[in-house]
Amino acid sequence: MTWETLLNQYTVLIDRKVKGYFETLKVKAAKYHPFMLKTYENLEEYVLRKGKRLASCSTLLTYKGYAGGVDEKILNVCVGIELYRHCILLHDDLVDGDEIRRGGKSFHNLFSEVRDPKFGEGVAVFMGDVSYVLSLETILNSGFSGEALHRAVELLVESYHEVNESQVIDLLFEHKEPDVEEWYVMASRRAASLFGTTILMGAILAGAPEEDLRVLGDAAADIGYAFDIQDDIIDTFATEQQYGRPPGGDISRGKKPLHLIYALRLAGPNELKIIKGIIGKGRITPNDLETMREAIKKTGALKAAKEESLKHAKKAKELIEQTQMGEESKEFFNSFIDYIAQNLDWYK
Amino acid sequence: MTWETLLNQYTVLIDRKVKGYFETLKVKAAKYHPFMLKTYENLEEYVLRKGKRLASCSTLLTYKGYAGGVDEKILNVCVGIELYRHCILLHDDLVDGDEIRRGGKSFHNLFSEVRDPKFGEGVAVFMGDVSYVLSLETILNSGFSGEALHRAVELLVESYHEVNESQVIDLLFEHKEPDVEEWYVMASRRAASLFGTTILMGAILAGAPEEDLRVLGDAAADIGYAFDIQDDIIDTFATEQQYGRPPGGDISRGKKPLHLIYALRLAGPNELKIIKGIIGKGRITPNDLETMREAIKKTGALKAAKEESLKHAKKAKELIEQTQMGEESKEFFNSFIDYIAQNLDWYK
Repeated sequence: MTWETLLNQYTVLIDRKVKGYFETLKVKAAKYHPFMLKTYENLEEYVLRKGKRLASCSTLLTYKGYAGGVDEKILNVCVGIELYRHCILLHDDLVDGDEIRRGGKSFHNLFSEVRDPKFGEGVAVFMGDVSYVLSLETILNSGFSGEALHRAVELLVESYHEVNESQVIDLLFEHKEPDVEEWYVMASRRAASLFGTTILMGAILAGAPEEDLRVLGDAAADIGYAFDIQDDIIDTFATEQQYGRPPGGDISRGKKPLHLIYALRLAGPNELKIIKGIIGKGRITPNDLETMREAIKKTGALKAAKEESLKHAKKAKELIEQTQMGEESKEFFNSFIDYIAQNLDWYK
Repeated sequence: MTWETLLNQYTVLIDRKVKGYFETLKVKAAKYHPFMLKTYENLEEYVLRKGKRLASCSTLLTYKGYAGGVDEKILNVCVGIELYRHCILLHDDLVDGDEIRRGGKSFHNLFSEVRDPKFGEGVAVFMGDVSYVLSLETILNSGFSGEALHRAVELLVESYHEVNESQVIDLLFEHKEPDVEEWYVMASRRAASLFGTTILMGAILAGAPEEDLRVLGDAAADIGYAFDIQDDIIDTFATEQQYGRPPGGDISRGKKPLHLIYALRLAGPNELKIIKGIIGKGRITPNDLETMREAIKKTGALKAAKEESLKHAKKAKELIEQTQMGEESKEFFNSFIDYIAQNLDWYK
């Protein structure tokens, strides 16, 4: 089975659990304030928008790979992981000023329309905070206990620390030109950290051997890097049809994806002038984006970034092979990693 | 000894511990990114600004009241409580657009000046998140363990949930006229929740009897209400000299402190017209504020709010007396509660 088949299958289970969770939350909220009920209805809709539950499925399949099966406790944890994933997206959309998330309005945008942008932004700040504590609460009340639970909570705390540091550094990158090393300082705290959390959470709660936790931690980082580099390439090179929203957002906001950092390093004087001219512009036109794409290709930066992503993908597969995780789970991760690599082939 | 003498004495101990904590954090950050070092330097300065460490001293003195003394473990927890207190202030200032906090720039304002407001606001969103996880990390690593630690973490999670709900509801109040009951739904999650957390944290970690935890929980809520009502009265009625910043911020932002809710209920048609005229204005002038003050006094709303605060203060003292907490700690809380009551006497 490919990762997508597995993902669709488990997404149904997880979504049902998420719905049940919000049902209870909404019944409680309705008793004290109608507006809190409304915010939780909106949060539920935001979390349950059509999409792959990649984060929570990583937890679920790692758990299954060691525990041998799926139970209610790990499904509770999956709810926590989805809440965690979405609290990050919520503050991310807010700070980036993104208006759309997965085919719907971004969270602040939902509430901006209720009153005004100031109100929407305020609600999003506080509801992002709420979503994070909901994820902690869900994991604290998942049914797991003792040392494994303690480590799971520590993981979620450490990960949120790292993810928010990566956000601060990423914001700084809009105002400077980082080198490759500095990009890795940021990226090691972004998708690499997120995959580390979701994968290790499942492994720890299933009682995986310590040696496997170390190997899985490294594998998760490699998956994260491979994914991040690919994800950024998509943002620059996909068509709007492929991407589901207008491409070029990163470039437009002055962010510094790895392929752009490579381009700045590899460019000759003429290309450098073109690239820097576009970076300095703020909001860019479709023409600017096309010029930028050509420059990134011409310098060899796209090729170099793809190779870097593939290097991490290959490493991740080797590491996963070394673990004692069950075959179905190994296949899931291997086929997901292959998908990342295939996606890279779209852009030549 | 009065609460202020005790507060000053323990503030020295806590501030020293906070400094030590940030020293370690900064050494680590310096190794991976200079800008993260800078953000932690700023966070340290923000947390250590001149002020009473009321939140962490409540934890410390409750702990001492049951454990008999102060130790390194509880001082670590006090660092966590101060980080917790300040993560709330950080997002609060951001959403309210406040430029000043305790004689210095608000956190977003510090970073707005480094680049631009968008940058400052982004850093504040993410660093507020970081401060909350730092508080969790600090308590997880405080040296306490087992069931007591688990309950302490649950308390911090539950409290942050409540505080952020109160923030959402408070934001909504800018656009509606809540009644007294609705105000209590909000306020039960604000200072009442915060005092509950700081006081119960100390009691749980010291192994206080379950019966005392129940009584202290109620007492903390009453302290919170007494404090909140008084704090809001100060915001409307203090001079800038007494307050340290321009008064009238709540009225100006359209917030609905309890004395204003009372005034809206008690006002005759003429006063109602005056009050609503000012509420609807957005930013108000010193003259508007003076007119509003007179109207709130004339309706009897100031008197009613003061009585409500005093009622809670009295209840809190009775409850604290029922506990087995040590005498010094009881005196601290009693003298703090008296201080709230005396402050109310300023405004007649």
